[in-house]
Amino acid sequence: MENISLEKKHAAVAASQLIKNGMTVGLGTGSTVNYFLDALATRIRQENLKIVGVTTSFKTANRAESLGITIIDIDDAPAIDLTVDGADEVDNRMNGIKGGGAAFLMEKIVAHNSNRVVWIIDSQKRHQQLGRFPLPVEIVPFGSGKLIADFKKRHLHPVLRQQDGKTVVTDMGHFIVDLVLNRIDQPYQLGQYLDSRIGVVEHGLFLGVADEIIIGTSSGVRQLKRDALQK
Amino acid sequence: MENISLEKKHAAVAASQLIKNGMTVGLGTGSTVNYFLDALATRIRQENLKIVGVTTSFKTANRAESLGITIIDIDDAPAIDLTVDGADEVDNRMNGIKGGGAAFLMEKIVAHNSNRVVWIIDSQKRHQQLGRFPLPVEIVPFGSGKLIADFKKRHLHPVLRQQDGKTVVTDMGHFIVDLVLNRIDQPYQLGQYLDSRIGVVEHGLFLGVADEIIIGTSSGVRQLKRDALQK
Repeated sequence: MENISLEKKHAAVAASQLIKNGMTVGLGTGSTVNYFLDALATRIRQENLKIVGVTTSFKTANRAESLGITIIDIDDAPAIDLTVDGADEVDNRMNGIKGGGAAFLMEKIVAHNSNRVVWIIDSQKRHQQLGRFPLPVEIVPFGSGKLIADFKKRHLHPVLRQQDGKTVVTDMGHFIVDLVLNRIDQPYQLGQYLDSRIGVVEHGLFLGVADEIIIGTSSGVRQLKRDALQK
Repeated sequence: MENISLEKKHAAVAASQLIKNGMTVGLGTGSTVNYFLDALATRIRQENLKIVGVTTSFKTANRAESLGITIIDIDDAPAIDLTVDGADEVDNRMNGIKGGGAAFLMEKIVAHNSNRVVWIIDSQKRHQQLGRFPLPVEIVPFGSGKLIADFKKRHLHPVLRQQDGKTVVTDMGHFIVDLVLNRIDQPYQLGQYLDSRIGVVEHGLFLGVADEIIIGTSSGVRQLKRDALQK
């Protein structure tokens, strides 16, 4: 197993140990989360755990159900006890960028409704400052050309996300624009601007969201906790 | 013709006089705008005007085209010279609430990209303060139950908009929640809160958007202009 995959697996297995019988678990999206789903499914089978999952994408829903994990609608879950998700980039303040998988709108909604949020990442996702990973912004298709032109004028370096020559459409029917910024000096200010921008549905800045980050290493894991950060 | 319809027609006809040959015109949505479309189509026919329209809803696009008005996509319009739209409520600062017709997201995008915005209303739409008209909020279907529960907790009195026993779905695929507030004391603060709220796509507060408001009366029109307001 190559090194990065091993790191992801270590983080995923550690997170699966946080799940307790009877929990409603928010299930993120992405390659690291897929290892988590495998590990969780094994625990459910071996320990006969009663767990229900709330999904953040159609992809994760399909995969979870094929593994025998029961999925319920977020609005049918009285509370989400714990959400386990990946991140594309994490900085020293435990802020992150998510959205490489185009599922960040649903991921943000699930995280916002969770009592506790744990991210699982490999060691290469961690940087001093955010921005090396392009910042995804989910936008309404109507007038998207005008919005992208406006982002260009503001030097936000927007790129409309495409795959196989077609514009990517999210599970919610929106487009994704990736802002190639290289460095984000003021993430809160940028987030506020994007929130207020007409045509923007949501952006991939997850600020103050993760309660705990589990970083896989070749031999095990390291952990960051928000409680410790604030001291 | 009943009085309100007459007022709407007076405002619409006055607005149609603002259209000049060669203009790209943003076309709003609603019953007052329908009078405007009729008046504009008549002028185009009689004066052989070259006009193209940018639409704010599938309804308006259909009606405009049936009247012989050419519609182009917003992203194909280099600029929108003038947008004529209705409003559901207007206050003394020329701020407004829009969204009774569920088209306010597209209306906001068109208004934001217009060089000039004119609203046409009947006299009953004008109040000292906003809020008698329920404030529409366009939201993502995923997790909408949780969002509505949260609005309830914050005493925003949300009502999920339904028609014929079914949840209304907008042209963009979202739901509408109407906030029954009766009185909005701080519209900018409320708008900012809603902008930042995860799951909210857009809200029906149009603050500082209209450059001119034409109010129909039984005998003609009255006008409000932002320039005059700021003095």
